Amino acid sequence: MPSAVELPAVQHHPPPMKRTVYFVSESTGITAETMGHSLLSQFDTLDFEQVYMPYINTEARARALCQRMDEACERDGVQPVVFATMLDREIGGILRQGKCFYLELFEQFVELLSRELGVPPSRKSGRSHAITKPSSYTKRIEAINFAMANDDGVRPDNFRYADVVLVGVSRSGKTPTCLYLSMHYGLRAANYPVTEEDFERGDLPAELIEAKARVFGLTIDPQRLQAIREERRPGSAYASAGRCLRDIREAQTMFKRHGIPALNTTSQSIEEISSQILRAVKSPNGTVG
Amino acid sequence: MPSAVELPAVQHHPPPMKRTVYFVSESTGITAETMGHSLLSQFDTLDFEQVYMPYINTEARARALCQRMDEACERDGVQPVVFATMLDREIGGILRQGKCFYLELFEQFVELLSRELGVPPSRKSGRSHAITKPSSYTKRIEAINFAMANDDGVRPDNFRYADVVLVGVSRSGKTPTCLYLSMHYGLRAANYPVTEEDFERGDLPAELIEAKARVFGLTIDPQRLQAIREERRPGSAYASAGRCLRDIREAQTMFKRHGIPALNTTSQSIEEISSQILRAVKSPNGTVG
Repeated sequence: MPSAVELPAVQHHPPPMKRTVYFVSESTGITAETMGHSLLSQFDTLDFEQVYMPYINTEARARALCQRMDEACERDGVQPVVFATMLDREIGGILRQGKCFYLELFEQFVELLSRELGVPPSRKSGRSHAITKPSSYTKRIEAINFAMANDDGVRPDNFRYADVVLVGVSRSGKTPTCLYLSMHYGLRAANYPVTEEDFERGDLPAELIEAKARVFGLTIDPQRLQAIREERRPGSAYASAGRCLRDIREAQTMFKRHGIPALNTTSQSIEEISSQILRAVKSPNGTVG
Repeated sequence: MPSAVELPAVQHHPPPMKRTVYFVSESTGITAETMGHSLLSQFDTLDFEQVYMPYINTEARARALCQRMDEACERDGVQPVVFATMLDREIGGILRQGKCFYLELFEQFVELLSRELGVPPSRKSGRSHAITKPSSYTKRIEAINFAMANDDGVRPDNFRYADVVLVGVSRSGKTPTCLYLSMHYGLRAANYPVTEEDFERGDLPAELIEAKARVFGLTIDPQRLQAIREERRPGSAYASAGRCLRDIREAQTMFKRHGIPALNTTSQSIEEISSQILRAVKSPNGTVG
């Protein structure tokens, strides 16, 4: 029997460490998630497994989450990060004792604000994304209905009722932006796609020109537009480089003629586009950017 | 000339103090606003004038805001509250020196996280709502397009491609919830309105039943449904108490028959409904609430 040969230990390169992150709240967890995302975005060279944990509103649920944190710790070889907005101290206390790096996002600010405002906090959870003001909630829902009913230029006669009308070539980002503006800011947002018909007529429709104080143009780089259209209708004339370039140029000429401010959406998210439009809607001269 | 009569000073009851609040950021300001709203919701007996100030990304803009804070202080008789997520210390420093109660929401957590993660923060602003991961951003946009194209049961054959299908009577909140789920969580959300046609047939359509593992019912209290429908079509049979009650009961009978979990949307916001659906989609047994 040959003697056992001692093989050199295989050098496993460890995979880049993935750290588990929990966004935890007693209610929707939207604040914990938004704030947690923002904070993590400051460390974008690292890899995070992000887990959304809303409605941790009983001690049993908190304990179950602690169990999951233990497992994550075992799996990742490092304690998970918890971003929490807990108002119930009992439930929060259970999580704090779990194997995790616990960041309570509310506590300190609630205390500071309470002192400044001279009023104790209500400590009721789930107030920030609940219907606390029915009138403004109804306004948002109506705005969403308006955006749905006035997508894609179906009713130009409704532009007079809109707070904002977005105009741009097909696939420049009008629809998602209108939906975002309505959902988050309660703006009645309509949109109009500039198409062949307008190019042939040589101008935008009268209803749009009449509303121009509330009209914003969306533009996009031709290469990016081509890529998006190619994805949608591969090999079509609609997706050709020439057609994309022509559409964009003609639309921009029309924006200029009517003094419609235009925003380049190429590398911007709907959140960024919406914030700039909101800012422009409120500013006296309507400039975007 | 009669001697001047000293009139008793008129007792003006001061109006309930309205305090100005600014949500300030170098970029979209979404995090500052979300977090600020949440914190203010703990003090819901007070009245706040909330002002959204995104893109305070130059010293000139910071100084202009300080000017506005001075004016608010003068007008309100009390210093405004500022919720800020500033990464540039120069610009943040200008605001801090303004007449305000300044709460910097990021700083402390960024430092704590940096120590825990062993990496310095990038200090780049505007990363959290920018397109940092094109693949997940594209997924969100595609989900929005899917929700738009599959609203109101127009294409039951597409239910097989949906992550979630919401079903409920007309005006139970399906459309805004689908849009929210798609926009914020990248879920392909379709919806199907239960109508007269289904009641006559005595069941839900086959495409819906086949997808039932991903189907969620929305229900609503009859009185609330009646109020919403009355607003939409005053005096109609559609808005009558009897019709609302009948629609809801018949829909619930169908949900029960197929074991479709149902969520009562009567006093819940689209954020709350969406969070619960998201939680159920991820949970092994699909329970909502």
